[in-house]
Amino acid sequence: MNNTDLTRFKDTGTLYLSAPEAAELVRRLGLPHCLAHMAEHIRTDFLRWADFDKSARTAAHSKDGVIELMPVADDHRYSFKYVNGHPGNTRLGLSTVKAFVVVAVVDTGAPLFLSELTLTTALRTAAMSALAAQTLARPESRVMALIGNGAQSEFQALAFQHLVGITTLRVFDVDPAASAKLVANLQGSGLHITVCQNTAEAASGADIVTTVTADKTMALILTPDMIEPGMHLNAVGGDCPGKTELHGDILDAAKVFVEYEPQSRVEGEIQHKPADFAVNELWRVLRGERAGRDSAEQVTVFDSVGFALEDFSALRFMMDSAVRLGMGERMALIPQLSDPKNLFGSLNLVTPAALRQQSNCIAA
Amino acid sequence: MNNTDLTRFKDTGTLYLSAPEAAELVRRLGLPHCLAHMAEHIRTDFLRWADFDKSARTAAHSKDGVIELMPVADDHRYSFKYVNGHPGNTRLGLSTVKAFVVVAVVDTGAPLFLSELTLTTALRTAAMSALAAQTLARPESRVMALIGNGAQSEFQALAFQHLVGITTLRVFDVDPAASAKLVANLQGSGLHITVCQNTAEAASGADIVTTVTADKTMALILTPDMIEPGMHLNAVGGDCPGKTELHGDILDAAKVFVEYEPQSRVEGEIQHKPADFAVNELWRVLRGERAGRDSAEQVTVFDSVGFALEDFSALRFMMDSAVRLGMGERMALIPQLSDPKNLFGSLNLVTPAALRQQSNCIAA
Repeated sequence: MNNTDLTRFKDTGTLYLSAPEAAELVRRLGLPHCLAHMAEHIRTDFLRWADFDKSARTAAHSKDGVIELMPVADDHRYSFKYVNGHPGNTRLGLSTVKAFVVVAVVDTGAPLFLSELTLTTALRTAAMSALAAQTLARPESRVMALIGNGAQSEFQALAFQHLVGITTLRVFDVDPAASAKLVANLQGSGLHITVCQNTAEAASGADIVTTVTADKTMALILTPDMIEPGMHLNAVGGDCPGKTELHGDILDAAKVFVEYEPQSRVEGEIQHKPADFAVNELWRVLRGERAGRDSAEQVTVFDSVGFALEDFSALRFMMDSAVRLGMGERMALIPQLSDPKNLFGSLNLVTPAALRQQSNCIAA
Repeated sequence: MNNTDLTRFKDTGTLYLSAPEAAELVRRLGLPHCLAHMAEHIRTDFLRWADFDKSARTAAHSKDGVIELMPVADDHRYSFKYVNGHPGNTRLGLSTVKAFVVVAVVDTGAPLFLSELTLTTALRTAAMSALAAQTLARPESRVMALIGNGAQSEFQALAFQHLVGITTLRVFDVDPAASAKLVANLQGSGLHITVCQNTAEAASGADIVTTVTADKTMALILTPDMIEPGMHLNAVGGDCPGKTELHGDILDAAKVFVEYEPQSRVEGEIQHKPADFAVNELWRVLRGERAGRDSAEQVTVFDSVGFALEDFSALRFMMDSAVRLGMGERMALIPQLSDPKNLFGSLNLVTPAALRQQSNCIAA
């Protein structure tokens, strides 16, 4: 997504990747391939952290939910994500969260790419988790507890299988049907899966514990008695004010890593901790500026909230792949004018005869 | 755009109106019809001013320009406009300003409508100007000076012809080719058009003076010597910090009307005036809460900067018209899931066989 593609897109409109086409793209390239490349794109962008303008998001709250616009830009590309959160949507048979994204050219303001972001978000969240675990978990980690077996769980499972080396899953969900769905979806993946009766049983003996629950209330999914030395905790589900998954004592006893400190202090597991509670931004670890895990016994926590830059990286992969595979459609969101100063004439809005007729019409 | 259309859109995706289709819609309904209905939609929304959440915009500045997101919402509909401003674009054969818009359902967050906004903005700006002049200009106004004959000028001319009763135009542009283009485009409109040698000549004898120049610098398009008693000044071109068209003394001697005071104090002609410089918000005049013109001799100024609510109103017209005419296409921006909790399975991302194969592949 460098500047050389500018002219290529100049006169061809906006490339549009629909939700069905994004799924087809993932089928064609293979889910493990997509996860691996997204993780690498995120790593690359995290290594050039300072290049990004990490603007504030705008949020419009209503009684049923929230609609947010999340912009992020570097010197070449601007992108913004549209995302909503409406907990009551499932009653209407709609998804709680829906997202799409636009990528534009910073130099000209031209919208380059419009894409679905529901599937892409599930992929990038899993890729981000795996990238953090590659960096923070013990290298010999093979067993993962997966607490919460909803919409994101299979993506987490496959990312950890292919990018971290997990071979065994110990899964639990308050809804047994969710676990059954996960087992059915991952049949043939090569993962050994044990369905457990509660979180403690699932966590027992795990090298990594991934929590990806959907509870909106302040939940205590993990309590200190479940934690074993050397565990890596991948806390994905706690991602907004009032939504956490970990008991506070776990955080006190662990080394905590976050994506972007200002955002995580509001939205993350650390939202109840004092402002000077020590956290480490992951990009500094990736750059070698900060240590990751200090010992094999240390408990590490990746307090993941999802950050706009990760969408930017994931989109870079989806857009480049779509262009390479000749997927997506061209949209004419912006008029192509033969003369930019002659909008009226270029669009051939009215002929002189029509103008006369309309004029009479109105006068009559 | 009331709530009854919610179910209709629930399972049919987002309606997309492209730039060519928006032009076709205007051709089919007739430009005067579209201008008249947009003006009425703006009036209706201005009358319920307090119902809108007039959020701040986000702006991403770069060396070549700016990209902005402008959200606005009422209890039922949320919309945001993407718009850029890149003065150097014309060198590349691109438009300086490009815009598109998304309308979503507040109750669910579902994106309902995606539309071009370049043509729609030109229409709504002209409709807004005409609505203000209907309210503020002397009723017997028949002659309009049109200073600046660029992309927006024909829309202004036709809006004032059909909605205000203007029969004669006195036009001027520093670029004679722009005026020639305007004359050619409006051939057959029934308007009597005189091309003038300078602004003073154009303004002489005019009932209304519309300035719609593109100069980015602090220009003095209108000076006090050009102003005659009872004139209405429609100042469209001065619309961002550092971009004005009127000499300050004109404002001091006139009654000034704006769209939304906080925005106009930053972006409008009044940007150099002290914070207590008296202005009148137009919606209060439309509601009958404030007087408009106080006498036939008074000079009135509509200091127009373009406000997100006007886009919302204009979009309401374009969307309703597209639905009524069966225009636009359905987009699948959001995946339609048979089970919202089973993103992985619903999208049929991988078959068990493919999972096995991919697993071997990566391991090999």
